[in-house]
Amino acid sequence: MIKIIPGGICAAKGFKASGVHCGIRKNKEKKDLALIYSEIPAAAAAIYTTNIVKGAPLTVTRKHLENGKAQAIICNSGNANTCNENGIEIAESAAAFLAEGLGIEKEDVVVASTGVIGQPLDIAPFKDGIPSLISSLSDKGSRSAAEAIMTTDTVKKEAAVAFEVGGKACRLGAIAKGSGMICPNMATMLVFITTDCDISSVLLQKALSEDAKKTFNMLSIDGDTSTNDMAVILANGKAGNKKIEKEDENFDIFAKALNLLTVNLCRMLAGDGEGATKLIECKVSGAADEKTAKSVAKSVISSDLVKAAMFGNDANWGRVLCAIGYSGAKTDVSKIDVFFSSAKGKIQVCENGSGVPFSEEQAKKILSEREIEILIELHSGECDATAWGCDLTYDYVKINGDYRT
Amino acid sequence: MIKIIPGGICAAKGFKASGVHCGIRKNKEKKDLALIYSEIPAAAAAIYTTNIVKGAPLTVTRKHLENGKAQAIICNSGNANTCNENGIEIAESAAAFLAEGLGIEKEDVVVASTGVIGQPLDIAPFKDGIPSLISSLSDKGSRSAAEAIMTTDTVKKEAAVAFEVGGKACRLGAIAKGSGMICPNMATMLVFITTDCDISSVLLQKALSEDAKKTFNMLSIDGDTSTNDMAVILANGKAGNKKIEKEDENFDIFAKALNLLTVNLCRMLAGDGEGATKLIECKVSGAADEKTAKSVAKSVISSDLVKAAMFGNDANWGRVLCAIGYSGAKTDVSKIDVFFSSAKGKIQVCENGSGVPFSEEQAKKILSEREIEILIELHSGECDATAWGCDLTYDYVKINGDYRT
Repeated sequence: MIKIIPGGICAAKGFKASGVHCGIRKNKEKKDLALIYSEIPAAAAAIYTTNIVKGAPLTVTRKHLENGKAQAIICNSGNANTCNENGIEIAESAAAFLAEGLGIEKEDVVVASTGVIGQPLDIAPFKDGIPSLISSLSDKGSRSAAEAIMTTDTVKKEAAVAFEVGGKACRLGAIAKGSGMICPNMATMLVFITTDCDISSVLLQKALSEDAKKTFNMLSIDGDTSTNDMAVILANGKAGNKKIEKEDENFDIFAKALNLLTVNLCRMLAGDGEGATKLIECKVSGAADEKTAKSVAKSVISSDLVKAAMFGNDANWGRVLCAIGYSGAKTDVSKIDVFFSSAKGKIQVCENGSGVPFSEEQAKKILSEREIEILIELHSGECDATAWGCDLTYDYVKINGDYRT
Repeated sequence: MIKIIPGGICAAKGFKASGVHCGIRKNKEKKDLALIYSEIPAAAAAIYTTNIVKGAPLTVTRKHLENGKAQAIICNSGNANTCNENGIEIAESAAAFLAEGLGIEKEDVVVASTGVIGQPLDIAPFKDGIPSLISSLSDKGSRSAAEAIMTTDTVKKEAAVAFEVGGKACRLGAIAKGSGMICPNMATMLVFITTDCDISSVLLQKALSEDAKKTFNMLSIDGDTSTNDMAVILANGKAGNKKIEKEDENFDIFAKALNLLTVNLCRMLAGDGEGATKLIECKVSGAADEKTAKSVAKSVISSDLVKAAMFGNDANWGRVLCAIGYSGAKTDVSKIDVFFSSAKGKIQVCENGSGVPFSEEQAKKILSEREIEILIELHSGECDATAWGCDLTYDYVKINGDYRT
């Protein structure tokens, strides 16, 4: 009943998007300004990075969303608008220009930026680009918008799902960007989500915040929590369902649909981690409590040594045990089982905390796949958790050794 | 008065050392078994990894040091003796064989191992190697012992200092190994220290534990806290000083001498981090309290993005601010100044939390040196801290993508 559909951020009724090159980036081939627009004002909710060094757009967006509604999202790439003296002024001006062009309130504009921190940013490219950004708005604009928010991403990230609330067809759509500086602690990378489902802004916030704990917050590319992380969701009610205003079964359906969307985004984000050749999913089961399961999964997925071993197709499970051991979670090491799994099969490498004989050849075959699972069974309870990450490669170093210049 | 001297672990009177190839490693050119021996029983103290997955040698050593004395340290490389079913048995047997050969109590033997986790380890190579290990003991054996404990280290690590206590010449000597899997949280990598200074085991422990908070615990190569970290110190009293039994001025002199030794070791360990081309020192000043200073310094030195930027000689100070922001420390971002410094000069890149214009050319020149300082002034108090790390390079990935095979 809940299923993946095409259309990205424009899959939901009444949403249009666009992306243009406005001149923040030097390369004219690269779009650097994205717009997402709802035909009517929408309920809105957001979560933000916990980094205390915050991009100016976050401060402006937080203020604009105080009333729980918004109608447009503008996001530039190529400059994070962070640690700039006049950052707030630039973000507010960009919102004002856009609002004027669209004929909406400037307080209904969400502002986001991604790129290099601490680089001066001028308002001129926004002024130049906003007219064509508005004129090119289209219900087929998801791809352009997704491209315009990319930084070191190698693929654009779009996803959408369809579901039903009270017999009415509803849709959720999204675009996302994120590749490095990702370890969203109680927050997330840049994710913009739209839905035509009618839902109150309070429950929209609740659904997003709860979901992020199991999805975006369980994602780590490099352990670096960005200054500009943000996930925003707009709900315009165009599906015509009975408005979701309490935590009933319809809210549960909405939460499930949202989770299908965000898990897909997490897999895309992790799989396209900077320099990554592999998506790694760490699934922990049998934990005494959820916190333990999450800590273990996140610790393993974040270990540079585990990540480098995965890059080398090396079944070095001792590093998995090591990362479990320093995760801060209380576990009984003598009960831990570890498996590696992929489309090529599944192999046990550790039983009761000690090594078991296994075929190195078979392990290499399993680990040479594009998507790898590290399965950890703690045999101490009923709770589980999944974390998403990627391998650590030469290209991560290459990309980040010379990102600015 | 306290000064660096040659001699390594054998610089202190009455200590001998040796290193041989015993067969734990396949490569016969590579020594894999080290011995440090005091002619007389010595006061002993140690600190251990906080990883709850612990190498078997740590369990045995902890038991042997309960009485605060020891006479010999045996350490193998090539196998961590961790996550092995019979690990404790192997560690105890190795201690017993050595003790028999030396004619000492087996409880006076410290056992340590470093290498791959979760690989079966046999007692045979120990039996084979211990006789020649004992017969080659020498007061010039520091170099051999230092070589025998190396894993992915590219250089052996020895250091020694001379100091005076109550008119008597004393010495501290050390060897260390460590290259990857280093982020010693309330513990340390493998460090063996000897001294001929007469000091009680209680104060020896206090000096080591206090010092580690400012030195070994402020070192991070890759954020991975090893299962086998250990720092051990033996004090045999051969210098003939009046025994240090309380926290008087002589204890302070000892602590200062120890600190000179351990800071030197930290610089060696960080500079020889896996794949490292650079030693990075992050010095934080003006913090409201020591905890803040330490958190900020450690967070910056641990950031993969900062480390990759340093590898690329890229003055990407926004990543420094980002790492300060997610360190968990409370700081006033609007007061933060950041400088990069090396033998080639010093340059300010951030003032009051915002960028300042600087010459990229000069910054590249400064950052292209072998030893880099990242200086952070918080302007919020009087406390400071230093953390040591290294850059993140292609070679780190290469070394760790295929370490076992």
